[in-house]
Amino acid sequence: MKTNQTSKLKIIPLGGLEQIGMNITAFEYEDSIVVVDCGLAFPDDDMLGIDLVIPDITYLKQNIDKVKGFVITHGHEDHIGALPYVLREINVPIYATKLTVGLIEHKLEEHDMLRTTRRKVIKFGQSINLGCFRIEFIKTNHSIQDAAALAIYSPAGIVVHTGDFKVDYTPVFGDAIDLQRFAEIGKKGVLALMCDSTNAEREGFTKSERTVGHTFDMIFSEHTNQRLIIATFASNVDRVQQIIYTAYKYGRKVVVEGRSMVNIISTASELGYLNIPEHTLIDINEMKNYPDEKMVLVTTGSQGESMAALSRMAADIHKKVTIKPGDLIVFSSHPIPGNEKAVSNVINELCEKGADVIFQDVHVSGHACQEEIKLIYSLVKPKYAIPVHGEYRHLKAQAKLAAELGIPKENIFIMKTGDVLSLDSESAKVTGKVETGGIMVDGLGVGDVGNIVLRDRQHLSEDGIIIVVLTLDRHSGMLLAGPDIVSRGFVYVRESEDLMDEARVAAEDALDDCLDRHITDWGKLKTSVKDALSAFVWKRTQRRPMILPIIMEA
Amino acid sequence: MKTNQTSKLKIIPLGGLEQIGMNITAFEYEDSIVVVDCGLAFPDDDMLGIDLVIPDITYLKQNIDKVKGFVITHGHEDHIGALPYVLREINVPIYATKLTVGLIEHKLEEHDMLRTTRRKVIKFGQSINLGCFRIEFIKTNHSIQDAAALAIYSPAGIVVHTGDFKVDYTPVFGDAIDLQRFAEIGKKGVLALMCDSTNAEREGFTKSERTVGHTFDMIFSEHTNQRLIIATFASNVDRVQQIIYTAYKYGRKVVVEGRSMVNIISTASELGYLNIPEHTLIDINEMKNYPDEKMVLVTTGSQGESMAALSRMAADIHKKVTIKPGDLIVFSSHPIPGNEKAVSNVINELCEKGADVIFQDVHVSGHACQEEIKLIYSLVKPKYAIPVHGEYRHLKAQAKLAAELGIPKENIFIMKTGDVLSLDSESAKVTGKVETGGIMVDGLGVGDVGNIVLRDRQHLSEDGIIIVVLTLDRHSGMLLAGPDIVSRGFVYVRESEDLMDEARVAAEDALDDCLDRHITDWGKLKTSVKDALSAFVWKRTQRRPMILPIIMEA
Repeated sequence: MKTNQTSKLKIIPLGGLEQIGMNITAFEYEDSIVVVDCGLAFPDDDMLGIDLVIPDITYLKQNIDKVKGFVITHGHEDHIGALPYVLREINVPIYATKLTVGLIEHKLEEHDMLRTTRRKVIKFGQSINLGCFRIEFIKTNHSIQDAAALAIYSPAGIVVHTGDFKVDYTPVFGDAIDLQRFAEIGKKGVLALMCDSTNAEREGFTKSERTVGHTFDMIFSEHTNQRLIIATFASNVDRVQQIIYTAYKYGRKVVVEGRSMVNIISTASELGYLNIPEHTLIDINEMKNYPDEKMVLVTTGSQGESMAALSRMAADIHKKVTIKPGDLIVFSSHPIPGNEKAVSNVINELCEKGADVIFQDVHVSGHACQEEIKLIYSLVKPKYAIPVHGEYRHLKAQAKLAAELGIPKENIFIMKTGDVLSLDSESAKVTGKVETGGIMVDGLGVGDVGNIVLRDRQHLSEDGIIIVVLTLDRHSGMLLAGPDIVSRGFVYVRESEDLMDEARVAAEDALDDCLDRHITDWGKLKTSVKDALSAFVWKRTQRRPMILPIIMEA
Repeated sequence: MKTNQTSKLKIIPLGGLEQIGMNITAFEYEDSIVVVDCGLAFPDDDMLGIDLVIPDITYLKQNIDKVKGFVITHGHEDHIGALPYVLREINVPIYATKLTVGLIEHKLEEHDMLRTTRRKVIKFGQSINLGCFRIEFIKTNHSIQDAAALAIYSPAGIVVHTGDFKVDYTPVFGDAIDLQRFAEIGKKGVLALMCDSTNAEREGFTKSERTVGHTFDMIFSEHTNQRLIIATFASNVDRVQQIIYTAYKYGRKVVVEGRSMVNIISTASELGYLNIPEHTLIDINEMKNYPDEKMVLVTTGSQGESMAALSRMAADIHKKVTIKPGDLIVFSSHPIPGNEKAVSNVINELCEKGADVIFQDVHVSGHACQEEIKLIYSLVKPKYAIPVHGEYRHLKAQAKLAAELGIPKENIFIMKTGDVLSLDSESAKVTGKVETGGIMVDGLGVGDVGNIVLRDRQHLSEDGIIIVVLTLDRHSGMLLAGPDIVSRGFVYVRESEDLMDEARVAAEDALDDCLDRHITDWGKLKTSVKDALSAFVWKRTQRRPMILPIIMEA
């Protein structure tokens, strides 16, 4: 490995900036690349029919010989979710803490990739050498256990990457964030800090996860005659732990419901991240053996996701749980922006069934607010600030904090995905741009749905489609059959027969006109019919359905 | 008009319950019906392509001889928006306060219905007789001026309907809510109170509109070197008034931008609801004559609506305003549930252009919180409580408040749209159900898009469509042309040619198989081809596009 004085460290976010989700960042120094995180994003509202979005890793494929491995900060989907897709293209080892590896393994197993993937569990405080990099895992707190910050030692200097984090002095499980280590590394001199921006617009300090436990205690003590159903994030093992403790204290049995939560809880439990008192957890099928006031269900669906367990209960299509008057449903969550209406709909459905619903103040965030961000900056004292994890407004809010803490404006970088930031102790600047983007996954298809397909889906969704088919004689070009008109998603045809008849006449007229003028070019024929039909439909309905002429030859 | 002891008052909500919007309620006593409000609803997320939703008024059409008129509480779309559609079917007079009539007239003019519609301006304190009803208009406060509560005097007793309201002791324009009159009527004895539930889940008191004025003053005084752009609701005339006053105080010119806001402001101004100091309001085209720090733009788009003025500025497609670094954009609004993500996207776009954005604490609600609701109950002291205006959860929250105030549970009615509540001083109960529903308006079509069309649009939006066309010989039933396959919104065809080729083969095989077996029934042919293609596509892509076989005959 050659090193020379002029080499710089390159930081290249391949996703995760200007958006929530799809976190993946390459760190490159000469012939070594390490990649931090490999997450997916959930589709935007305009990505109709898309299941999930994964990062374009063209840059990594082009530099495959340099790539030493993936270093994963924690086990949330937006940090691990793209691994099964990306590993098919670049099969390099994965390094993460124990629970994170456990969750990744579960995911790989589902994709039948467990055998072919190298992975290694790293402990907090431990370091690994990857090419010319050394990576140290530092304990943090987050809404999932075993979250790590990374100290990335490169010949050009140290970069501290917080991952998603908060400062919890009294965590439910394990230790508080290792602030001493942040300080120690800060003392050595840190080149750049890449810090979580999610809550950078919020003043103050995020409360300890443990405060939710106190709230549970109050709820359990005040509602001793009702069945309790508590919805929360599937991956928040500490939250479930606190429900289990509280249930045990108040003599209730716990049922966990919802596939993703059952999976995560079982992984966490196997790996020792969950302490379940004997006989407390029961199977959903045993529920009938206990009176309502001795039960608490912990369930997915806190975001109003239509197929999650709680939503199915609210809609009365859950096979094993029927909501009844007197049930108390607790949303231990905040709606993620975009989910407010779905959550509200579920609350309405639950209320209509006579259930009581508590949805305020039974949740704390997993992300650092302004005071915590300032604390990390003050311990690490970086030369350069690179806000990460968040939409532009959040990155900007952190940039403002960094400036208030005395970091010169020219040393603060709000990067865009694909930017190549080249830096060392002398200077830092964006020196290039690499190919990036979101690749849409729809069913088994990875990347076969692009903007044209999406635009068509959007068009179809708004006004439907009218199809005009006709058959021409192969030799004479004369009309053999049609034009026939079929529509879907346009109007309720039985009530609009006249309209459809007139539409056919409009198409016929346009066609006759073409044939009269001896126009035989199919492109021109199609355009004429389409334009005529489009004009007719607009005039009569002020709608613009997709119009698709199909010509056959016989 | 006969009256006898056994007649009861019937209250029949034809919309507006279990939902936000589409407020319309019929009050019936023997041969008289008066209708309170006639609003539209904005389409739910699953009503793809729908522009707006209006109430089904079958019940009013069936009883057209009884219907004496519409009494409108205030000029918001969810209270007046369906009038142009409904009046086409039942042309009865409209009664409302001055500004409300002004806004209705503007709407009727757009539909070319001004000439054919009778309407009458009513003053606060004034009463009108409609059949056996007397209706009194009572001054309230709301986020639009001239909002009225109604005292509906019937032979069976008095019903007080609050409309949308808040208690503002220090309104920007006109008087505070007429609490004395509520008390006076309460003293007479009120049969039922129908009270706004929108904020019934919120503790405390909604702040005075005037407090927003103080916030504007602070913002203007602290940002003297920037252009100000303030987004708010088009219909909040008092909000715009306060911006104009503050601009005048700080020597800024005001531009109003956004079609709906320009319309409402001009109506309000003509009718004397807005006080504009001379030379303060300028046209958008004069803007260039003033330096940035002497300008404030008031604009629509506070909800992130994609075609509203602010969204167009943020997306850089506004013809006359370009956002630049240093602009200060103020969101004087809260996102309505469901709009959070759209608002956030606009904030991100504005931040990316270097603008500063303020989006917190520059708004107050127009609806009463719990303490105000309790106040109205305590003044009116109704026998029966009928929470209105809100989703189920909100109605339930008000029902809880009513119970806390001592109204017996059996006297509290959470009604559903279509319920017929029959009441007098002796008893009240739901005695029937009338036909109701939402009629979807799409372009010029009213009610021609139903659930089948919506289901098709949903299906098309998720996975697109595959069309299989073939031409059979009219006589022999032999295949003359095809099967040809065309898809839209399914896959990017150029990259999936093999897939489409194989799909055609699958369709061909199914067809050959049918023809071999001498199946000539078109229904069976279509089903075979569809099933074969569907199975092939699912296996290869795990998607379920709509599959549409079309058979022609030549």
